Amino acid sequence: MDLPKVLRMKSGVDESSYFNNSKIQGVIIQETKIIRQDAAVEAYLCAASPDTMTIADLGCSSGPTALLVVSELIEAIEDKCIQLQRQPPEFNLLLNDLYSNDFNTVFRSLPDFYWKKSGNNGQFFISGVPGSFYGRLFPSKSLHFVHSSSSLHWLSEVPEELQYGPAPYLNKGKVYISKSSPSCVLDAYLKQFQRDFRLFLKCRGEEIVSGGHMVLTLMGRKSSDPTVLEDCYYWELLADALNAMESEGLVEEEKIDSFNAPYYSPSLEELKQLIEGEGSFSIRSSERFEAGWDAVDDDDHETICANERLRYAQGMAKGVRAVLESMVKSYFGEGILDDLFSRYSKLLENYYSVNNAVVTNVVIALVRK
Amino acid sequence: MDLPKVLRMKSGVDESSYFNNSKIQGVIIQETKIIRQDAAVEAYLCAASPDTMTIADLGCSSGPTALLVVSELIEAIEDKCIQLQRQPPEFNLLLNDLYSNDFNTVFRSLPDFYWKKSGNNGQFFISGVPGSFYGRLFPSKSLHFVHSSSSLHWLSEVPEELQYGPAPYLNKGKVYISKSSPSCVLDAYLKQFQRDFRLFLKCRGEEIVSGGHMVLTLMGRKSSDPTVLEDCYYWELLADALNAMESEGLVEEEKIDSFNAPYYSPSLEELKQLIEGEGSFSIRSSERFEAGWDAVDDDDHETICANERLRYAQGMAKGVRAVLESMVKSYFGEGILDDLFSRYSKLLENYYSVNNAVVTNVVIALVRK
Repeated sequence: MDLPKVLRMKSGVDESSYFNNSKIQGVIIQETKIIRQDAAVEAYLCAASPDTMTIADLGCSSGPTALLVVSELIEAIEDKCIQLQRQPPEFNLLLNDLYSNDFNTVFRSLPDFYWKKSGNNGQFFISGVPGSFYGRLFPSKSLHFVHSSSSLHWLSEVPEELQYGPAPYLNKGKVYISKSSPSCVLDAYLKQFQRDFRLFLKCRGEEIVSGGHMVLTLMGRKSSDPTVLEDCYYWELLADALNAMESEGLVEEEKIDSFNAPYYSPSLEELKQLIEGEGSFSIRSSERFEAGWDAVDDDDHETICANERLRYAQGMAKGVRAVLESMVKSYFGEGILDDLFSRYSKLLENYYSVNNAVVTNVVIALVRK
Repeated sequence: MDLPKVLRMKSGVDESSYFNNSKIQGVIIQETKIIRQDAAVEAYLCAASPDTMTIADLGCSSGPTALLVVSELIEAIEDKCIQLQRQPPEFNLLLNDLYSNDFNTVFRSLPDFYWKKSGNNGQFFISGVPGSFYGRLFPSKSLHFVHSSSSLHWLSEVPEELQYGPAPYLNKGKVYISKSSPSCVLDAYLKQFQRDFRLFLKCRGEEIVSGGHMVLTLMGRKSSDPTVLEDCYYWELLADALNAMESEGLVEEEKIDSFNAPYYSPSLEELKQLIEGEGSFSIRSSERFEAGWDAVDDDDHETICANERLRYAQGMAKGVRAVLESMVKSYFGEGILDDLFSRYSKLLENYYSVNNAVVTNVVIALVRK
């Protein structure tokens, strides 16, 4: 599986696009707004009010959040400049995602964005930087602030042992770490995440100026045990949906056995250990939080009723489909998509009847030493 | 006509795309290679061997030339570094075009490009910068070298007098400056070009470091008289094709009368005067040259035979269509495209039976004072 080619949020702006199905990512962006704005202001002050403030958003995707983040960062720094009676800097805003990302959709929304921001004092310049963040993307010492949200849980590739392993497959009937996975599967996933995340830190360490800040938000775990259902139910239920289709002869067993998601959600402790070990950054703050589908809704109920459960499940299934469709399609074929995600939606609905409709995230703010 | 939306090279990589019909632009790029490489090396030396060399290509389009230019510039500077026994800089390569440009096609060709250049010593980083170059695109004093080829003959808009003028229309039956155009049409076009080009120089003057270089290639005129057929036959013949369709009731007369191309090909003298008047840049060199369809072919004949004439005409018609299709479509409708460009191709064939199959260009190398 050539990951940079098949891992892409669903293009365009139609009903099933990532653009229209990234509400949970929007909630996560909102939850972390203050941390991000504070860190960006700190980075501005650390750089001794630079003429140009360079900000990168890694894994910007093609959704509405791509421009929301940079827009709020500009506001925070401009507010600080007003408070300090300083001229705001020019902003150099770099939006990164994989080569296959739909940058055209992002770019075509820019004239409206520029128009809305035309009252701003400072000038800002937006560009798209295609490529994997598990490699260098920007010139040395060129960035003041880096942000990444809902992206770093994607690995650079499926762990090698799980990718090419001969039959019998190591992670039979599962698509990610599960209660039934042998410990070598857990090891393979953890090691791949460690390799990737260390490389990420090394590359950003080269690109970020001393005193520059970085805020990373990604799917994380509550438990130190990665097999706890609460931390990976979205994959467990996807495997259940695939297995149900297999039992009806709609998907080959071997296809499911050989498929493993290029994904890992670390615990906060795993992340901290890696950052301290790599050594380029010090940790300014870190926390775990839950992003829930209820935050998308206006209503405020203590218990979720059947209608809400259905809505949350459908929203989550559509969101997961907008993220995974290109990958599932390339592996299992286009024919299974509607059936698979319809079953997935029903399984989510059942899950939400006894569990909270939430996903756990971690956010960590770092400073380049 | 919202120009940034409708002026775009034909997207994708299919048979009729700009990607596959930009041979003449490729010839122009080849013709100016030495001038561009020399200027980029000068810019590198003027900047006292910077750690990062920032290069912008303005109007990069989505064709194969988008990456060819930056690739050759890297080579020239790396060769100079080897000669001087210096470590090559990191290259920050910024590809600009309008918001509506097909950046996705450019970005998807990058993995191959990175793979081909993997033997290089230096690191290079590529990004896409969407927006009109008749406005600021980059932070202040951030560029060492700027290049633009086959782009600056496009105006920011159709001259106002010709855009909104009430009937009777000023440039009846024509789509650009022609022998029959009244002098107010010539004036309107010249003034629009002057306004646009001055603004271009002012913006680049703010973005380019002192001692930075800029090489601009655009369609130009041999004659000081802009109505000479040799300098504008491609528009004259397009008007002829439209008028023939009008006489058959296939296009409305008023549509043709009210359409004027957002284009101007200046003489070298007009360009020099504008650059000297604006004052940010000094002129290092300037020349006029002809780019011919014969350069696309392998054969070398003194006179063109009927077969070649046909091939040149078809190539030119396809190339013009890949550039103009989105604009013609938005104004005259999609229905006329095939018929129009088939007639256009025949008119070009006739023209090439008695004239050279060439277009005149000007190239000018500038240094930021």
